[in-house]
Amino acid sequence: MTNDASQAMALLKQYRESIDRLDAILIYTLAERFKQTQEVGRLKATHGLLPCDPEREAWQIERLAQLAISADMDPEFARRFIRFVIDEVIKNHNCQRKTQIEN
Amino acid sequence: MTNDASQAMALLKQYRESIDRLDAILIYTLAERFKQTQEVGRLKATHGLLPCDPEREAWQIERLAQLAISADMDPEFARRFIRFVIDEVIKNHNCQRKTQIEN
Repeated sequence: MTNDASQAMALLKQYRESIDRLDAILIYTLAERFKQTQEVGRLKATHGLLPCDPEREAWQIERLAQLAISADMDPEFARRFIRFVIDEVIKNHNCQRKTQIEN
Repeated sequence: MTNDASQAMALLKQYRESIDRLDAILIYTLAERFKQTQEVGRLKATHGLLPCDPEREAWQIERLAQLAISADMDPEFARRFIRFVIDEVIKNHNCQRKTQIEN
């Protein structure tokens, strides 16, 4: 391996270690977020509230798009990301309501 | 509003404030992750390396699934989440290579 190539591999290793640390933050933060949304789901099911709240969702999506811009990230990706997460939450809320009705 | 309902609304507000704070962490962490992967993309493009690395991807996906389990989160969601992020990164890497070839 040339000196240039081995320097590149060392740099690649450094970037990847950062990425792996950031991924751990992402997973633990998502896990904490799901714990909170589980509580929201339980609360909504108990009080007969709908699992979806389009007004809040629209507000969340636009807020995160703005945060993305301030962090120099593509706001379109932020919108798709939060949609991806919200869809998972809604799926889980539907399950919770179904379980409550069945039990 | 009954006392019970107003207590529920106060609790809902609390959960939502937590969720909004966690979302800010997620967006800023994703932004930082993309900065790192941009550097990886640049490095790979400079050294003629392929944008995809299936072996590393498989390792990342399984690592995050295990982290999800340890955080009491659905490992399947973690797998879909990291796939979603990696696909975005690959798309961007392809763009970077295309831009380099074009310029």
